[in-house]
Amino acid sequence: MIMIRENFVQENMEKFSSQSKNCSSFFQLISNKGIRQGQFNIRGKVAKTPLFMPVATRGTVRGVSPSQLKEIGFEMILANTYHLHERPGEEVISKLGGLHRFMNWDGLILTDSGGYQVFSLSNYRKVTDEGVVFRSVLDGKEIFLTPEKVLEIQKKLNSDIAIFLDECPEYPCSAKREEESLIRTLKFAQSSIKVEKNPGQLFFGVVQGGMNFKLRQECVHALLSLGVDGLAIGGLSVGEEPSLTKEVLLATLEVIPPDKPRYLMGVGSDILEYIKMGVDMFDSVFPTRIARHGSAILYNKGRINISNKRFKEDESPLDEDCDCYTCRNFSRAYLRHLFVCGELLGKTLLSIHNLTVLYKTVRALNS
Amino acid sequence: MIMIRENFVQENMEKFSSQSKNCSSFFQLISNKGIRQGQFNIRGKVAKTPLFMPVATRGTVRGVSPSQLKEIGFEMILANTYHLHERPGEEVISKLGGLHRFMNWDGLILTDSGGYQVFSLSNYRKVTDEGVVFRSVLDGKEIFLTPEKVLEIQKKLNSDIAIFLDECPEYPCSAKREEESLIRTLKFAQSSIKVEKNPGQLFFGVVQGGMNFKLRQECVHALLSLGVDGLAIGGLSVGEEPSLTKEVLLATLEVIPPDKPRYLMGVGSDILEYIKMGVDMFDSVFPTRIARHGSAILYNKGRINISNKRFKEDESPLDEDCDCYTCRNFSRAYLRHLFVCGELLGKTLLSIHNLTVLYKTVRALNS
Repeated sequence: MIMIRENFVQENMEKFSSQSKNCSSFFQLISNKGIRQGQFNIRGKVAKTPLFMPVATRGTVRGVSPSQLKEIGFEMILANTYHLHERPGEEVISKLGGLHRFMNWDGLILTDSGGYQVFSLSNYRKVTDEGVVFRSVLDGKEIFLTPEKVLEIQKKLNSDIAIFLDECPEYPCSAKREEESLIRTLKFAQSSIKVEKNPGQLFFGVVQGGMNFKLRQECVHALLSLGVDGLAIGGLSVGEEPSLTKEVLLATLEVIPPDKPRYLMGVGSDILEYIKMGVDMFDSVFPTRIARHGSAILYNKGRINISNKRFKEDESPLDEDCDCYTCRNFSRAYLRHLFVCGELLGKTLLSIHNLTVLYKTVRALNS
Repeated sequence: MIMIRENFVQENMEKFSSQSKNCSSFFQLISNKGIRQGQFNIRGKVAKTPLFMPVATRGTVRGVSPSQLKEIGFEMILANTYHLHERPGEEVISKLGGLHRFMNWDGLILTDSGGYQVFSLSNYRKVTDEGVVFRSVLDGKEIFLTPEKVLEIQKKLNSDIAIFLDECPEYPCSAKREEESLIRTLKFAQSSIKVEKNPGQLFFGVVQGGMNFKLRQECVHALLSLGVDGLAIGGLSVGEEPSLTKEVLLATLEVIPPDKPRYLMGVGSDILEYIKMGVDMFDSVFPTRIARHGSAILYNKGRINISNKRFKEDESPLDEDCDCYTCRNFSRAYLRHLFVCGELLGKTLLSIHNLTVLYKTVRALNS
């Protein structure tokens, strides 16, 4: 089996190499000692790394306005290609001047490929080397996504960083399945790299290979030889033990050259540890999702659920160590009241706080 | 029947007169020609009239932050005594420094008496001259509200303007019922006026009397002789023809001295007409409630429902004549998208717009 893999990568390495490009001007590594610190400069916009991206699933970070995101300090957010393709459709967004203008966000935007939604949301799907057929979660309509198509969508959205289509294997799965999905991911990448980028846009390839270190490393090499601008690490935190996540991640990062940005997809916990290991970028719906259920993240003090009765007369701010809009202006007692009454403002205020904690915690490492 | 009424008012007039006070320093009538223009100055805070108050039912204008209300320009808001009594309770709010501090609103606050909620929300109720017994809409628990009790609650909330308990008759109802509820409202007012105000707080009496002009006018006289600081006009827009509303309102306003502020309770439509008739203050959940359902009020152009398909690619702002945060920053297409996807931000953005239209429309008359 290893033979087959090695042959595959060997055969393809040459093709890949011929397409290799130098794309490092958009990312500057500032320090590689201790915590990796870097800086994106894309289309004249700057974003320091390490960075955390709030998730604007449908072109909005749920319950938080773009001005509020800006006030927190975010420089880059993530939006979901699949959801925006379904509604309102990339054609509409393109006609309206692209996603930045559509949602009134003048910072940077990374869009995912939609691949994760295909594998996580749809019961019916068929994957071939050409692409993925699956049913819309909205209306059951059949959708055919190819590597080229997902990039065309992201070009119409005109995001700053676009991600290749990949195949994420289930966890746990067989060694054969890990390899198959890697091969498919690389075939998708080969088709993807041929798509012409929008001016200034970056293309990130996705590292798959299950929990197999060797496959992961081969995937990195193959993607690099294709000339991707950065590496999105997928297929982790999918149910495996955290210790295994770390081992696989370490093995993957080991073979990525220092000047390449590394984005760990969809992982919202243990971020500090992953940053120390050398990850530059994160996204997660976690801080906003738990906020909408009343759960607040405190600086270095774990979490509290603000609906708890013990906060009924608590006049202290949500987090004494925080200076976000919510903590500057409201008491725990008021926030609890909003949640007990199901008031919308509660969701917004806790989302602002949780995002601020994520932002500041990560930002403290790059300033 | 008229005899009985006249006797009642006659008898009581003397009692009322002895309690009369001069309370006009807090309200200055600036112009009485054409549109009435005035200015509140309560506890060092100013609010120009005519004014529209957004409704912060449970200590929050649904989906809108206090900073957003401030940015629109509001100087006074309304909060519901009954709802705040239920949750979190006036004791909690009092411990936390009063309603202003609790909800972080540094403008003026008017609280209603809770009387309207008693009559509109509760199926079971028993009204006597002492007060009202009814079942909590939250847990069915029996609640006994007296004229003194509703003022004690409002004193604990420490609102700037507190309203007396009243009895609002059903519509339509018999002449006898109109008179009975008027008599009870005045008895409540007699008990209410004896309650000592918080420093700087104002007490408004409620004008009832059904659709009977004479009863309405007698009610005004009686309340004035009690020495109320202003008049809240209740029991209108309860199902009667708009032409009747106007006739009753005119008859009521006719007998109110020019220096007394007049607040038309819970009426959110035809505001401009009522202002021209001499009303100073309004409140209504209407603009925020319809906003949460996607309905936007346009300046002088009626309403649109933003979820409508025709806005799918409409890149113009919600209202070209508006400069609110929403209209400055987002297209109709984006707002439609937010509503189609059920995104919270849509509710907030439309609420901001609708409140701005109400604010500016009324404000245009007093600047």
